[in-house]
Amino acid sequence: PVSKPVSFESLPNRRLHEEFLRSSVDVLLQEAVFEGTNRKNRVLQWREPEELRRLMDFGVRSAPSTHEELLEVLKKVVTYSVKTGHPYFVNQLFSAVDPYGLVAQWATDALNPSVYTYEVSPVFVLMEEVVLREMRAIVGFEGGKGDGIFCPGGSIANGYAISCARYRFMPDIKKKGLHSLPRLVLFTSEDAHYSIKKLASFQGIGTDNVYLIRTDARGRMDVSHLVEEIERSLREGAAPFMVSATAGTTVIGAFDPIEKIADVCQKYKLWLHVDAAWGGGALVSAKHRHLLKGIERADSVTWNPHKLLTAPQQCSTLLLRHEGVLAEAHSTNAAYLFQKDKFYDTKYDTGDKHIQCGRRADVLKFWFMWKAKGTSGLEKHVDKVFENARFFTDCIKNREGFEMVIAEPEYTNICFWYVPKSLRGRKDEADYKDKLHKVAPRIKERMMKEGSMMVTYQAQKGHPNFFRIVFQNSGLDKADMVHLVEEIERLGSDL
Amino acid sequence: PVSKPVSFESLPNRRLHEEFLRSSVDVLLQEAVFEGTNRKNRVLQWREPEELRRLMDFGVRSAPSTHEELLEVLKKVVTYSVKTGHPYFVNQLFSAVDPYGLVAQWATDALNPSVYTYEVSPVFVLMEEVVLREMRAIVGFEGGKGDGIFCPGGSIANGYAISCARYRFMPDIKKKGLHSLPRLVLFTSEDAHYSIKKLASFQGIGTDNVYLIRTDARGRMDVSHLVEEIERSLREGAAPFMVSATAGTTVIGAFDPIEKIADVCQKYKLWLHVDAAWGGGALVSAKHRHLLKGIERADSVTWNPHKLLTAPQQCSTLLLRHEGVLAEAHSTNAAYLFQKDKFYDTKYDTGDKHIQCGRRADVLKFWFMWKAKGTSGLEKHVDKVFENARFFTDCIKNREGFEMVIAEPEYTNICFWYVPKSLRGRKDEADYKDKLHKVAPRIKERMMKEGSMMVTYQAQKGHPNFFRIVFQNSGLDKADMVHLVEEIERLGSDL
Ligand SMILES: Cc1ncc(COP(=O)(O)O)c(C=O)c1O
Ligand SMILES: Cc1ncc(COP(=O)(O)O)c(C=O)c1O
Repeated sequence: PVSKPVSFESLPNRRLHEEFLRSSVDVLLQEAVFEGTNRKNRVLQWREPEELRRLMDFGVRSAPSTHEELLEVLKKVVTYSVKTGHPYFVNQLFSAVDPYGLVAQWATDALNPSVYTYEVSPVFVLMEEVVLREMRAIVGFEGGKGDGIFCPGGSIANGYAISCARYRFMPDIKKKGLHSLPRLVLFTSEDAHYSIKKLASFQGIGTDNVYLIRTDARGRMDVSHLVEEIERSLREGAAPFMVSATAGTTVIGAFDPIEKIADVCQKYKLWLHVDAAWGGGALVSAKHRHLLKGIERADSVTWNPHKLLTAPQQCSTLLLRHEGVLAEAHSTNAAYLFQKDKFYDTKYDTGDKHIQCGRRADVLKFWFMWKAKGTSGLEKHVDKVFENARFFTDCIKNREGFEMVIAEPEYTNICFWYVPKSLRGRKDEADYKDKLHKVAPRIKERMMKEGSMMVTYQAQKGHPNFFRIVFQNSGLDKADMVHLVEEIERLGSDL
Repeated sequence: PVSKPVSFESLPNRRLHEEFLRSSVDVLLQEAVFEGTNRKNRVLQWREPEELRRLMDFGVRSAPSTHEELLEVLKKVVTYSVKTGHPYFVNQLFSAVDPYGLVAQWATDALNPSVYTYEVSPVFVLMEEVVLREMRAIVGFEGGKGDGIFCPGGSIANGYAISCARYRFMPDIKKKGLHSLPRLVLFTSEDAHYSIKKLASFQGIGTDNVYLIRTDARGRMDVSHLVEEIERSLREGAAPFMVSATAGTTVIGAFDPIEKIADVCQKYKLWLHVDAAWGGGALVSAKHRHLLKGIERADSVTWNPHKLLTAPQQCSTLLLRHEGVLAEAHSTNAAYLFQKDKFYDTKYDTGDKHIQCGRRADVLKFWFMWKAKGTSGLEKHVDKVFENARFFTDCIKNREGFEMVIAEPEYTNICFWYVPKSLRGRKDEADYKDKLHKVAPRIKERMMKEGSMMVTYQAQKGHPNFFRIVFQNSGLDKADMVHLVEEIERLGSDL
């Protein structure tokens, strides 16, 4: 009975709910999954906040709704949401609505698990074990040995790395905290993701104690500066304990020279973390994994399958070469959850390694995609995305009005300026940079309002605003690359 | 074509995927949602890890699968997973697969958003704003004012509270870290959730600097001991900065006396956090919200709609009475994501308040349930769950073989011993406690192996192992309460 107010009870009932559930799935498949990713349709329908509040009734009230009303609500949610699975959503380090990832997410939701004990999540505990081991093997940790966890995002994965590194450095920290210890210092490049600073601050280390290392013109960590900064910290009487190298930087897609950094870490006895949240996906490609050469020497690695490999949000991992440290650093042995007198082997109760208690099963979506496509399919996916990026670069490289920020991108982020006609050939004029700085935001505004594509821009290193286009979706073809280039021209040429 | 290997491309395609997606939904609705929550079926099919590995092929390999194979895989995942939506899953502080929550999760997955900027998540940014304001209003913060965030779990929400409290105490900490600061100390009860200690350690405060306050026989914080401990910390030259009171403790379901604790916090100028992860749901009930009296005086509140209100995993919030501190404590102003020269009002780019970068939209499921049932429906839900808990208590209170740990439970966790016939009337014997200690694990083993129900046990405060049954699912009725009691008797009477 669609027009009857719904019952408050939290138990599915075929008679009451089946029709509604199926109608909802119809809406989702039609509007979000198929039409939402159809090139003929828009990526978004832009609305200013005030307007969106008028169009959608966000308010909650005392009375229940009917199924009819709820289906309308659902449609509106879909209509006004950005279609991140649309081929022309090239705005972030994630995109796509992978069909196999989606099915697995839907399964996870239908089971509503929490992964802390084997008794509550037998399937997901064993699945995590397998996937983390396979990922470690791909990283190159000997025999896939070591440890790992799924985290709610790469930022928190980086936080775990800091936590493990400092625990190894000074196990006392767990009980005593940082207060009475020497000043801990860690090193990362100025192009590293902001989560390193953010988490270091959250973890009580302080942003001042994240020493930022210069990068070269292509965005890679300058190893001689790293050595200088380590020496400086020692002179200051501080306690350097960790270097976080980045494999695939957020904006430029640069790969820090891991081998050389590993040598430095070895010399100074520092924990080597590699933030491969974004770049890790390249490891599944025989052709491209050389970008991360030396990663097998890392103590820990952040790798987000939800980025290059298009697993649904969120699917992030921290992988460690060492066994034990995760549990040692984080366990509190809560007796109500991790009882030791259970009838099964409690080594499968993995929850105490985590800082989370309840935890979603983020493994199923990735495992299911892996099962579906095989390792060979994941490799084809990565290789195709690289080819697209290469092709896109070739398209714009010598094209009038386009200028590369980095001539030869290493990865699938491509940073470039679009120079409208009115600015071409005027590089030497005093206000050129200021004017160019305003171009990307204007084009972005137009594309958002038309809903035709989404690509982001930013200023960095004194450069005026430039576009960063990012590819992860292997459903895109060369024709799409051409379309994206032409679309930017269409939107910007009259500026 | 079901028997053709799947393509590697990450773009949904009606021709290739619609049939598979629909068949998958059929499996999920049938096996997980309806049959998985049917009283006639088992809560789980127990398998030892080794056996499960034989029954399910967890391995990944190079070649892709066919849709046929994937459907089989999906069925196995469902078959061997615990049905947390089953009425007899009363094992944790979460349960149920709410039909409206489920639809909203499925919608979230089909849209695959990340909530950091308005441009990428317009609907979810505004929705979060509304839901967090409504929740603050229910807490009792004047006019719903303040701030808030969705967190990946109550543990991390508690961590944010610590972070805000110490930032308010000493803003220097963000840059300088804890190293050169006085020794920070926070207070929580010995019955508080382990996340307080865990996060304090992760955040560099150290577990030793979490001073545990005694609880009374009913599990509530002893306020005079709190004062003593604050005084002690001051004598030690430490810097007390925060009290975390618990509203609804994890095991016993006790509510700390917030009013009195608020007075103490006022006197000593300490941040008052209330961990109402579990108890917060009671606030929607006119009848039961008195349990949290005084919560409107808190500086921050953790409240997990995924617990008592049965929103799907995970849905956790931190609510603050203060504006600004979340952003001040956590922002790093990453220029590539939070550009200030956007064409819309960037106050809607809320991501920089968070320590996460990418972030799932955990709001939709709760908002949609709220829309569906109305505030009145949420209230009926809570009242029914309380009634069930009351009825269950009445059932066992004077029943032979059952003994209450706390005679009058305040909340919907009920802690009790089941005393098998062989032990009745032998309380005075020397080995009574040891023997009783072994009963709950034995019964648990039997219920797991039969799959007939799931309820947890633990030892606490020198007590031998006792059961803790927890109710959140409002689909349960009085007959279920009787069934659960009788089931424990059936499983344990011969011990
Ligand atoms: C290099 C790098 N590391 C870490 C992260 C953070 O990952 P998440 O968004 O999953 O927190 C990002 C996000 O873009 C990133 O680019
Ligand atoms: C009182 C209390 N606080 C916090 C938490 C942690 O919540 P989560 O499991 O969402 O991390 C729990 C979990 O059971 C709890 O009982």
